[in-house]
Amino acid sequence: MTASETGGRAERRGGRRAGRGESGPKQLPFRQPRLRYPPVEAVSADELEAIHEASLRVLEEIGMDVLLPEARQILKEAGAEVEPGAQRVRMDRDLVLEAVAKAPERFRLHARNPAHDLEIGGDRVCFGQVSSAPNCSDLDRGRRPGSQADFRDLVRLTQSLNVMHFIGGYPVEPVDLHPDIRHLECLRDFVTLTDKPFHAYSLGWKRIRDGIEIARIGRGISREQLEREPSLMTVINTSSPLRLDAPMAAGIIEMARAGQVVILTPFTLAGAMAPVTVAGALVQQNAEALLGIALAQIVRPGAPVIYGGFTSNVDMKSGSPAFGTPEYMKAVLVGGQLARRYRLPYRSSNVNAATCVDAQAAYESVLSLWAVIMGHANLVKHAAGWLEGGLVASFEKLIIDADTLQMVAEFLEPLQVDEAALALDAMREVGPGGHFFGCAHTQARYRTAFYAPIVSDWRNYESWREAGAPDAAQRANRIWKTMLTAYEPPPLDPAIKDELDAFVARRIAEGGAPNEF
Amino acid sequence: MTASETGGRAERRGGRRAGRGESGPKQLPFRQPRLRYPPVEAVSADELEAIHEASLRVLEEIGMDVLLPEARQILKEAGAEVEPGAQRVRMDRDLVLEAVAKAPERFRLHARNPAHDLEIGGDRVCFGQVSSAPNCSDLDRGRRPGSQADFRDLVRLTQSLNVMHFIGGYPVEPVDLHPDIRHLECLRDFVTLTDKPFHAYSLGWKRIRDGIEIARIGRGISREQLEREPSLMTVINTSSPLRLDAPMAAGIIEMARAGQVVILTPFTLAGAMAPVTVAGALVQQNAEALLGIALAQIVRPGAPVIYGGFTSNVDMKSGSPAFGTPEYMKAVLVGGQLARRYRLPYRSSNVNAATCVDAQAAYESVLSLWAVIMGHANLVKHAAGWLEGGLVASFEKLIIDADTLQMVAEFLEPLQVDEAALALDAMREVGPGGHFFGCAHTQARYRTAFYAPIVSDWRNYESWREAGAPDAAQRANRIWKTMLTAYEPPPLDPAIKDELDAFVARRIAEGGAPNEF
Repeated sequence: MTASETGGRAERRGGRRAGRGESGPKQLPFRQPRLRYPPVEAVSADELEAIHEASLRVLEEIGMDVLLPEARQILKEAGAEVEPGAQRVRMDRDLVLEAVAKAPERFRLHARNPAHDLEIGGDRVCFGQVSSAPNCSDLDRGRRPGSQADFRDLVRLTQSLNVMHFIGGYPVEPVDLHPDIRHLECLRDFVTLTDKPFHAYSLGWKRIRDGIEIARIGRGISREQLEREPSLMTVINTSSPLRLDAPMAAGIIEMARAGQVVILTPFTLAGAMAPVTVAGALVQQNAEALLGIALAQIVRPGAPVIYGGFTSNVDMKSGSPAFGTPEYMKAVLVGGQLARRYRLPYRSSNVNAATCVDAQAAYESVLSLWAVIMGHANLVKHAAGWLEGGLVASFEKLIIDADTLQMVAEFLEPLQVDEAALALDAMREVGPGGHFFGCAHTQARYRTAFYAPIVSDWRNYESWREAGAPDAAQRANRIWKTMLTAYEPPPLDPAIKDELDAFVARRIAEGGAPNEF
Repeated sequence: MTASETGGRAERRGGRRAGRGESGPKQLPFRQPRLRYPPVEAVSADELEAIHEASLRVLEEIGMDVLLPEARQILKEAGAEVEPGAQRVRMDRDLVLEAVAKAPERFRLHARNPAHDLEIGGDRVCFGQVSSAPNCSDLDRGRRPGSQADFRDLVRLTQSLNVMHFIGGYPVEPVDLHPDIRHLECLRDFVTLTDKPFHAYSLGWKRIRDGIEIARIGRGISREQLEREPSLMTVINTSSPLRLDAPMAAGIIEMARAGQVVILTPFTLAGAMAPVTVAGALVQQNAEALLGIALAQIVRPGAPVIYGGFTSNVDMKSGSPAFGTPEYMKAVLVGGQLARRYRLPYRSSNVNAATCVDAQAAYESVLSLWAVIMGHANLVKHAAGWLEGGLVASFEKLIIDADTLQMVAEFLEPLQVDEAALALDAMREVGPGGHFFGCAHTQARYRTAFYAPIVSDWRNYESWREAGAPDAAQRANRIWKTMLTAYEPPPLDPAIKDELDAFVARRIAEGGAPNEF
């Protein structure tokens, strides 16, 4: 590549504003890709039924411990068998399946900016950034526990990246904020720094109620409208094996009551908190997910829920969780089959267990995405920035994953096959032994013909060396800094801002929400 | 991970001998994965027909320049229209399709070790290493032009890696060998350093005849048996657009006559030597492939051929080829659809355009593999070690790709779903809130439950830092050195060795094979 061509690349990257306030890399516009290819199935219909049957037997014969008395009461009134003086709940298959059948197959998740509303389910997919990492890292400052400053920067980047469709939780835990008021500060940031749909953690009645109220305020709507229009999501992780803890049960109840989105995601690592066989881990995942979804539907029939799958395996030598493995890939495909069996939207994740932003981080991630996309996940958490099995939110990985996700989105776009695309006239014009650079067919299309990457470097070796031989992580490092510099918060109605600030101030003055359980 | 666990990992890696002479990483055994998932299609049946029709019109209306007089004569005698006094050949659709229909849908490719015979076609896939790179690189010695020493080391590694099923060509060009005798030295090395099927370049009548003779000698069989048992492959690249040069045409003729495998692979970069639209590039790819395959079938009906697809795009700013792009992925899927339409085995490639073994190298590769596997490629060239758009054979990338390919192979293995795998009893034993580490179900399975990687590092951050924080490339660096140290050549009948040496000595004494065209 010549010097002028390098200049051309720089110009191309900076030349088009891709979103509000961005002068960073050229991006694809915000849009939800469609899952155009048929879902890939890892087990036969009979095998799927065997998993389904086994999970129903788990709920009937073994049951689950439900740690919240209110949840046990609700389930008991619905017909479940609750062991007297104990936490064990058993549910027969009809009760479970009739409840699950009430959940909607698809629904709209509302953002405070309607252009960022999401269709959840069907052939649509959407991506959110890494969340819940205790640490973050970048090439300049290394690995460190999360802070509010890092939290905010990662939220800003999530807003700036068009391929990030929602805020899936705290990208990193801001440990410098007291836990009692952390949710208030963080949720306010979600409303003010972004205009995409977001997530609140189910960490007790008060915190999730605060989340629901902030979602309502952010959209400037009534409680009644909120109940009709899902505008907030929460992930419910069971305490595998076969336990639903109190804050999570409260989250299901409160979010379902408010008509908000419950993403039921057992985190079942085969060999640790689930059977060592992937099939067994999936049976357990399915049992736990069905119980939680049934609870939501018993609380409010028709409440929006998402079937979450998060089955991977542990490295049996070290006990470390492994991600992006062949076992993970197969579990993701079967998770999708199960979700479709129950006519529910499906949530999955883009994961890896690498300790730095190297080839492993990339190959484990893309192997995950392969299964996530071909398994028809509708909502992908941790889609960008996840590192080290979720212990780290990486600024550089966030950018690299965003590029990969854009490529996946392009891969999902239909190939144009019409008379002009078939290009017979161009071939006639150029003829044997010629070249197509200058022909009319090329000239008319070359600017937009191909995907233009954010991170990929296609310079020749000499130019790349002269430029300091930056690897993908180093290039991503420059990109996120440019994006942060260019970041501008999305517009927000001052009245909403005032109401939000007043609510947060009042709740902080009240002491926030101490741990309830 | 504790020190003793690190020890455990080292023991696990070295504890099982995976192949002859190996004490390197534990590997999966040599086996050809089955493409268990249905092929993914990027265009509809109608669109596929439109591409097919357009490519037949290219051959009828525009034609191709065929630079070898013998090839034009053969085509003319078969009914093609050859422009008098020119190289242009036009073929009508019946002539093309009737010839192509004579090719076998699948066949066996023989190795000198029958355990390494390959089934080509159907639902089988096989992988070969990077080939034809002018340079090689490793972390110790950097990037450099290829030499015989590097060539031999890369061939030894290809033999040592069980997931490498064939030798796809010279991993790197040994430029210290004179071109007239290079093929003799290299092909002898293929027979002596490996016992897997291999490739000879179509660089003139004499060189390809030498290749066929060396394949015959290596297997210790007669010419008649060789003609019945394909034992050598050659890749035919057209000189796109729409030209078949003389050495390649000679290769088709000579290999088909000998009943050996012709892999017809137009290298059609959209926007450079093919139309800027992917559909147009595929039309051209298909026209060029069909003409070459037809020629092979006219020479010897039933000769084994493989439909090769290699359509990607150029970066329109720099003119650099781009690989592992969304355009590449879609072209790979459609290539598979075309190959299946003609009932031919399909060849594709695992490619990237990264300049170092970084996240880009990995994500472009795995995106390629995603399409290659879901598009049902039967033979995958450049499956491991390719870097920088094919300009470099990377020792470290070879190892990383081998790990990824093993993961892909595991992903293609069926999930076990039977009573024991469903693990109801294990869940009953462990119960809510327990853990599965110690239960009988886990103890009986944990050693073999999950894929054990070669390169992936799942240690915790602290252990990884204490170990010097090696990234994937640095870990791969250690692995290939261990494998080379442990390498032993596979056994070879001394009589075959003598015949081979005598043949090579005679041909070198004769001056080898100077360029003929």
